[in-house]
Amino acid sequence: MSTGSTPGSPARPTPRPTDQADVRRHNAALVLGCVSSSGPLSRARVAAHTGLTRATVGTIVDELLAAGLVSEQGTRSASGIGRPGTDLVLRPDGAASVGLEINVDGIVVAVVDLGGTVRHRAARSGDLRDRTAAAVLRSAAHMVDDAVAVAYDLGLPVRGIGVAVPGLVDLGEQVLRLAPNLGWTDVAVVERLRFYAVTHWPCPVVLDNEANLAALGELWRGGHLSTDSFVLVNGDVGVGAGVVLDGALHRGSRGFGGELGHLTVAPEGPDCRCGARGCLEQVAGLDFILRQAGVRDAPRTGEDAVTPLLTRLRRGDERAIAAVRQAGEALGVGVAALVNLFDVDTVVLGGVFAPLFPWLDEPLQAVVRRRVLSAAWAPLTVRPSDLGRDAAVIGAAYAPLRDLLADPLTVVEESA
Amino acid sequence: MSTGSTPGSPARPTPRPTDQADVRRHNAALVLGCVSSSGPLSRARVAAHTGLTRATVGTIVDELLAAGLVSEQGTRSASGIGRPGTDLVLRPDGAASVGLEINVDGIVVAVVDLGGTVRHRAARSGDLRDRTAAAVLRSAAHMVDDAVAVAYDLGLPVRGIGVAVPGLVDLGEQVLRLAPNLGWTDVAVVERLRFYAVTHWPCPVVLDNEANLAALGELWRGGHLSTDSFVLVNGDVGVGAGVVLDGALHRGSRGFGGELGHLTVAPEGPDCRCGARGCLEQVAGLDFILRQAGVRDAPRTGEDAVTPLLTRLRRGDERAIAAVRQAGEALGVGVAALVNLFDVDTVVLGGVFAPLFPWLDEPLQAVVRRRVLSAAWAPLTVRPSDLGRDAAVIGAAYAPLRDLLADPLTVVEESA
Repeated sequence: MSTGSTPGSPARPTPRPTDQADVRRHNAALVLGCVSSSGPLSRARVAAHTGLTRATVGTIVDELLAAGLVSEQGTRSASGIGRPGTDLVLRPDGAASVGLEINVDGIVVAVVDLGGTVRHRAARSGDLRDRTAAAVLRSAAHMVDDAVAVAYDLGLPVRGIGVAVPGLVDLGEQVLRLAPNLGWTDVAVVERLRFYAVTHWPCPVVLDNEANLAALGELWRGGHLSTDSFVLVNGDVGVGAGVVLDGALHRGSRGFGGELGHLTVAPEGPDCRCGARGCLEQVAGLDFILRQAGVRDAPRTGEDAVTPLLTRLRRGDERAIAAVRQAGEALGVGVAALVNLFDVDTVVLGGVFAPLFPWLDEPLQAVVRRRVLSAAWAPLTVRPSDLGRDAAVIGAAYAPLRDLLADPLTVVEESA
Repeated sequence: MSTGSTPGSPARPTPRPTDQADVRRHNAALVLGCVSSSGPLSRARVAAHTGLTRATVGTIVDELLAAGLVSEQGTRSASGIGRPGTDLVLRPDGAASVGLEINVDGIVVAVVDLGGTVRHRAARSGDLRDRTAAAVLRSAAHMVDDAVAVAYDLGLPVRGIGVAVPGLVDLGEQVLRLAPNLGWTDVAVVERLRFYAVTHWPCPVVLDNEANLAALGELWRGGHLSTDSFVLVNGDVGVGAGVVLDGALHRGSRGFGGELGHLTVAPEGPDCRCGARGCLEQVAGLDFILRQAGVRDAPRTGEDAVTPLLTRLRRGDERAIAAVRQAGEALGVGVAALVNLFDVDTVVLGGVFAPLFPWLDEPLQAVVRRRVLSAAWAPLTVRPSDLGRDAAVIGAAYAPLRDLLADPLTVVEESA
């Protein structure tokens, strides 16, 4: 429901004239989207689905075939009339991208193909708060170099690189404005990564907040989403939220939305690295949980910081269970705020909250039932992300592929 | 930015076929919206603005003239060529509606014309928590009866009635599910109002949450909004928020969003009527402020409950000032949550917060600066609603007029 700011302004905006090139780009996205979501499909069925003429579909399909984004499958006999047709499918290895997640406790890269399959994954664990931004970005750039090389070995054309960071991203400038837990301010992440890279990356690199990208990953690969409005709450040392409303990521008016971790849950609580007190991530983030649980074993390289905690939880360690329950209650206050304000009916827990879900769930839900005004008649689903801790890195890989799916002619024109 | 839930689903939905009647309705709204926002305009300029043919515009304008929604103004000489044209303007008295606000401390009705001018206003003050829903709705229905009669005396055709209530509204069923401060659950407000009315109301009656309607009122009549994303925080005994994103009211997936008053700001704080503890409205709502300020004088009939408080504030009463400052700090925690989560750049304070703004502003802003992560480089404007306490009742009147502006043919067909 849209309304203007003046009395009686039009209910819908005056249609903007589109030129021929816009129409062509739009139609190409329409055809690729149709094949991708409903394929295998014949050209005739694509025409019927999209409302485009058969001639238009034929031209676009030829271009998409040449660019390697779709392929023909088998040969169908077209009920005896005309020449036998072939069905079109998305070509999963027609494009790929590299996702990079830089977080407080490590770096992860993944090569993901157009079909959403993770074809390569590498991780380095360790507390990045002990290292400079330059050292971290140099390591990350070399991990991306390696991933790009692996993709080419696998015969996958890398069409983009997506980078997830735990902080506020200025999307226009592609600068990380503030990552309180890393202590970084105004870091030109993309420019620095390209600078430190050993190889030239001949593709776009996009930067975004980790929780936003985790929400995108969940939309893409999380499966069985019966709703297109949900909030993904991503837990690590920091806590962030990616808000999806009506199938679209809502970033707020300047792209700085979803900062759930800095919701005040204990006004007189512990100091936060953001400068305020009693922020949610101080009483629900990974540092708090590990400290309360008495987990001090440093993770071995390549191992998740959460592994020693999970071991204790599984063997019924009371202190570990109490720590996670306490975090679950604090998280319940945050989730209640999300539901009271946004009225979402689904909350997906990602990051470390995904493996901790069996222990977080009950205390979280108890708080939500008490604190959500509509709880009695508007049921809330809280579930772990199917992508587990990898939602953000998969979402990071998806970001450039999504751009490609929305405008496949960029690839068509390159390959022409 | 929209994305599908499956890999590579189309970036934009497949266009839905529209029939001729849809097109006609859409074009009528386009023409009326154009005249309303940019008039006075000649038919030719309307055609140029909307991209419709002159013939189509001519037919629609004739219908809108006959329905009394637009009128012709003066006679312009069309630079010597062709016959002299006349300019079209919206006819402010071509339609009107009645807004009704039922709140904890009283009932307000207003007759508002299509131009947004309040033509009649009546209020009854008094604590409605002492009365049954039946008694309150009977009084309210009679006030609406009177307002409808006044409108007809003024020659204003009443095209709808909008009702604002302080609680969660099931928009589909038009039922007030829960109003914690009134102690009402599952009240069929619209049905009851029509039942108690002495006269037959020959027009639609729409029910919505007061903060949502206050946000609509602000969009319509609040003026100088340089942004189309803002949150209106409406203060009374309860505290609610109306969230406007990109010019559209965001109600959440089930219409229950914006419940800012039940944000937890003091987990161990006072019990709230919602059943939880330490909700914002317990430490920033009107009851709290009046109690802290030591204001016990009952308002005289027709007088605002906030008047005795304002008198004390203006004469520098320290206890009153401290009470409002304390509420301002709590409100700052709520506003910080809104900004951290939604990333809005404008917060408008309505209801009792509008007249209290001079005393609330500084403590509120101090908390926001400390608790909003992006505060250093993303400026936030906090300002009082220009509509003061009347934002909700004006928004209530606007709701049916907005429906009319979005589909003027309903009136055209009635008057044909």
